[in-house]
Amino acid sequence: MNQLNLDIATRVIDSALQKGRELELAPLCVVVLDAGGHLIAAKREDGASLLRPEIATGKAYGCLAMGFGGRELARRAQTSAPFLTALSGLTGGKVVPVPGGVLVRSSDGHLLGAVGVSGDASPKDEVCAVAGIAAVDLVADTGDAA
Amino acid sequence: MNQLNLDIATRVIDSALQKGRELELAPLCVVVLDAGGHLIAAKREDGASLLRPEIATGKAYGCLAMGFGGRELARRAQTSAPFLTALSGLTGGKVVPVPGGVLVRSSDGHLLGAVGVSGDASPKDEVCAVAGIAAVDLVADTGDAA
Amino acid sequence: MNQLNLDIATRVIDSALQKGRELELAPLCVVVLDAGGHLIAAKREDGASLLRPEIATGKAYGCLAMGFGGRELARRAQTSAPFLTALSGLTGGKVVPVPGGVLVRSSDGHLLGAVGVSGDASPKDEVCAVAGIAAVDLVADTGDAA
Amino acid sequence: MNQLNLDIATRVIDSALQKGRELELAPLCVVVLDAGGHLIAAKREDGASLLRPEIATGKAYGCLAMGFGGRELARRAQTSAPFLTALSGLTGGKVVPVPGGVLVRSSDGHLLGAVGVSGDASPKDEVCAVAGIAAVDLVADTGDAA
Repeated sequence: MNQLNLDIATRVIDSALQKGRELELAPLCVVVLDAGGHLIAAKREDGASLLRPEIATGKAYGCLAMGFGGRELARRAQTSAPFLTALSGLTGGKVVPVPGGVLVRSSDGHLLGAVGVSGDASPKDEVCAVAGIAAVDLVADTGDAA
Repeated sequence: MNQLNLDIATRVIDSALQKGRELELAPLCVVVLDAGGHLIAAKREDGASLLRPEIATGKAYGCLAMGFGGRELARRAQTSAPFLTALSGLTGGKVVPVPGGVLVRSSDGHLLGAVGVSGDASPKDEVCAVAGIAAVDLVADTGDAA
Repeated sequence: MNQLNLDIATRVIDSALQKGRELELAPLCVVVLDAGGHLIAAKREDGASLLRPEIATGKAYGCLAMGFGGRELARRAQTSAPFLTALSGLTGGKVVPVPGGVLVRSSDGHLLGAVGVSGDASPKDEVCAVAGIAAVDLVADTGDAA
Repeated sequence: MNQLNLDIATRVIDSALQKGRELELAPLCVVVLDAGGHLIAAKREDGASLLRPEIATGKAYGCLAMGFGGRELARRAQTSAPFLTALSGLTGGKVVPVPGGVLVRSSDGHLLGAVGVSGDASPKDEVCAVAGIAAVDLVADTGDAA
């Protein structure tokens, strides 16, 4: 596979949301971006607060902007705050450097896009993103070593 | 009904996209916003260009910002360009004043949200938005008299 | 009187809204700014669309920014579009150059602030702004000769 | 009740300001937003400084953006500065993460909007917001356990 498509993105989102319901998480928003950082599909569950789409998008976009998963972005936000400030400036504030942004790769490592999840605590959001990606037999890159 | 929910929004989108396939339109993006202008769900078909999500969102958002459908917004863009320029400035450029943005109302006229469609010619985009809203037995307000 | 205060601003708003109900206008938003362009008070009637506060504020702010009423601003938007574009740039898009923004002056011509109204057609919005200012025995400057 | 209206919002504001006078606080600004984050009504007392409307709005908006009261937002600003920086970027700087932003809920927990108060120390601002909400028999959610 060379790129995500709407059918796959929809299955990623529905599987991520199903995982959130299994874990009884707070209402979630799940967004899938293509490798160019552009929206393919998004869903916000009833009761999720109003900025969740922007937060989920910012998690996914930040991963694509830098080429690594949200955990690595979160580490750099801690160790290199000025760089993250610059990244915010460059992108008009679109980057959210916390877990829950996950790169989507093919089995041979090709970058296909990213998933962003927001609504509960960031590590729980990330569990749902990873579950959504696994459901379509693609590889989740959270920014931590596998 | 007092507000849209994710289940209804998803059905609106899927019905709008189905209409686009029946009419053999160009690939579309369909977005559903709640009454406060915040995303509930969105899908971009394979092959739709990269800005379609922002355009579809801008159509729907403009309708909610002003309280009337995209056709009325398009008329005002013709007759009152300075006002539309101001509207763009006020919103950070988020308003797209063309057909294809359609308000969603309950049968008793209560405002529930808006649908935006982008991908083909604006009037054809609008046909799909209207079809999506009709599929869930809600009322489409395009900005023209019914 | 040298400046508006909250009591007067509230009476301006309530009188403007009362005029709107007498004339059976669409739901309105009325904003009162002090001479520095800063909010004193605002009310948005039930059913007024979501951007009405920003539009009403933009009408009032534009008047204060330039020192004349909204009708003069509207004329300049027609005859000098590049200047209005520059004004939008300077203010981050906050100026709305249409009737319905009205300067508030004391009987001796001292500038006290501005009222902005949005919700119906701009000339009708302006009627309500003028009525609100008259209700507190101050002078409305619409940008037209009295 | 499914949503706030102008009558209720006005009573919230007037009760909050009355509390501020009882407690002899510094001049206050009180803002009420609907569930979509849009202004319903606002009042700034004489002598309150020029940015108080934006600060009060930012407190209320931040609560609605994230779905919890200002005390929880303040805690996250302490423990997760990069996330709050990102939130500021995403919203164009509209979030103010301190006490004095309070969610308004119906007795059955439905989210109706938010109140923001600014002018004195944040905890005292919050006391006024809570008093305003109590005056209309609605439930204040400050972000702390009740």
